[in-house]
Amino acid sequence: MFLNRRSVEIEWGDCDPAGIVYYPRYFAMFDASTAHLFAAALGYDKFEMRRRFGIVGFPMVETSARFIVPSRYGETVTIESVIARFGRSSFGVTHRLLREADLAIEATETRVWAAVDPDDPGRIRGVPVPAEVIKALSLDNIFS
Amino acid sequence: MFLNRRSVEIEWGDCDPAGIVYYPRYFAMFDASTAHLFAAALGYDKFEMRRRFGIVGFPMVETSARFIVPSRYGETVTIESVIARFGRSSFGVTHRLLREADLAIEATETRVWAAVDPDDPGRIRGVPVPAEVIKALSLDNIFS
Amino acid sequence: MFLNRRSVEIEWGDCDPAGIVYYPRYFAMFDASTAHLFAAALGYDKFEMRRRFGIVGFPMVETSARFIVPSRYGETVTIESVIARFGRSSFGVTHRLLREADLAIEATETRVWAAVDPDDPGRIRGVPVPAEVIKALSLDNIFS
Amino acid sequence: MFLNRRSVEIEWGDCDPAGIVYYPRYFAMFDASTAHLFAAALGYDKFEMRRRFGIVGFPMVETSARFIVPSRYGETVTIESVIARFGRSSFGVTHRLLREADLAIEATETRVWAAVDPDDPGRIRGVPVPAEVIKALSLDNIFS
Repeated sequence: MFLNRRSVEIEWGDCDPAGIVYYPRYFAMFDASTAHLFAAALGYDKFEMRRRFGIVGFPMVETSARFIVPSRYGETVTIESVIARFGRSSFGVTHRLLREADLAIEATETRVWAAVDPDDPGRIRGVPVPAEVIKALSLDNIFS
Repeated sequence: MFLNRRSVEIEWGDCDPAGIVYYPRYFAMFDASTAHLFAAALGYDKFEMRRRFGIVGFPMVETSARFIVPSRYGETVTIESVIARFGRSSFGVTHRLLREADLAIEATETRVWAAVDPDDPGRIRGVPVPAEVIKALSLDNIFS
Repeated sequence: MFLNRRSVEIEWGDCDPAGIVYYPRYFAMFDASTAHLFAAALGYDKFEMRRRFGIVGFPMVETSARFIVPSRYGETVTIESVIARFGRSSFGVTHRLLREADLAIEATETRVWAAVDPDDPGRIRGVPVPAEVIKALSLDNIFS
Repeated sequence: MFLNRRSVEIEWGDCDPAGIVYYPRYFAMFDASTAHLFAAALGYDKFEMRRRFGIVGFPMVETSARFIVPSRYGETVTIESVIARFGRSSFGVTHRLLREADLAIEATETRVWAAVDPDDPGRIRGVPVPAEVIKALSLDNIFS
């Protein structure tokens, strides 16, 4: 699978009175990591994805995270993201947050590839993930 | 002037490793306080304001805050908000954040009453603040 | 079990460009809901819990959320929180976020009751949850 | 003066339902920019500053921002930060946020160089900014 790796610097404002990252902040980091994963594999951003595929985005259906080691202000962590599976109109993402070589957090996401419902413009619904998207995200890249 | 007073409980996630509120969080509290001020004076929310007056909102032009006393997790603070002045298409807001009787923060905002520019739908521009809005926000209420 | 119910007003700053709550914000709401649950059952806050039981807090081990219906700016939602189970030094929390009568999100947490490790003051470790805490959180209250 | 320039990518979660950056997020960006400015000029981070100078940090006394042009999801902006002035125990910072060549935001900060009060360990107070700090931040660097 295509793996995207990015560095995130832990800022003062990411941390709580215990001096460690306030865990909701990790979900913001992972949300951005999913966007970066698609952008890296496809070569264009969410706006272009919307334009090209007529989607509204890929809203979250379910997410989970297991916190193994805390991170602190001033550290730079690495987030590795891959698509774990493609369903017909949904897909899974796995994020691994690393402090140097140590796995600090493992997170999963299930998202839906969503477009405006043609029968009801006030609603969105899942539509099939395009073959070219599946292909681009499934290719091995240099990091994997 | 119409004064709106609301209580805000300081949560763990509002605070930084120094154990005090991370100051960008105060701006989120003040932004919500401005929305609550209008809702309290007019009797309806921002969506209804948009519908009724054809505005897109009241984007921030300039804001400042002076931090006198920090607040900590578990405290409940009071925010008092008033319109400081109405210009033709802009207005000023003043927020005072109190810890019990003590003034802890004083903040000011300048915002613009903004609508889509009819000459260029991709842009917004200031439009006159409606007389009924000025009137509702200028009335003395029980708190002032 | 002791159930705590609280109302949360969705603010403008909680929402993303899709006009719905940016999901990491829900985790901040749930984190605060767990703190409110303990405070409601015990009658004192996290600081007093620390003082009384010698703990540093109850850090998150694992959390998950299933998003069923989005929420929007201006809505007031209800969060119901209960302890799902007590282990020896860990416990589970379940949060249900309701939009009127509809279940909008279901979330789970596994946290550890943690104290400074006497053998290594730079580390924390799980310690047994006190009987009086288990008892207070296990009692039926008027909401359940 | 020493000028630090850094790039910040605007993430989905930074933006509000109007599709532009929610302005409290800018203050988090500027807070991090001040930390990066000191780290770049001194060659070490806030932890080392605390250890070396016995300070607790440099809490904010007053901040303001003027918003000229909004930024949107997917854009990469540049933040340029300099010390505007050094007082005895306080200092001013100026941040300029640029969208390509355009000035989008101008912000100012007044912070205090703060240590624990030896006469009352529960309080902090301003102490003189060390000469080596003033010198390092006052040197011209390649960017200025």
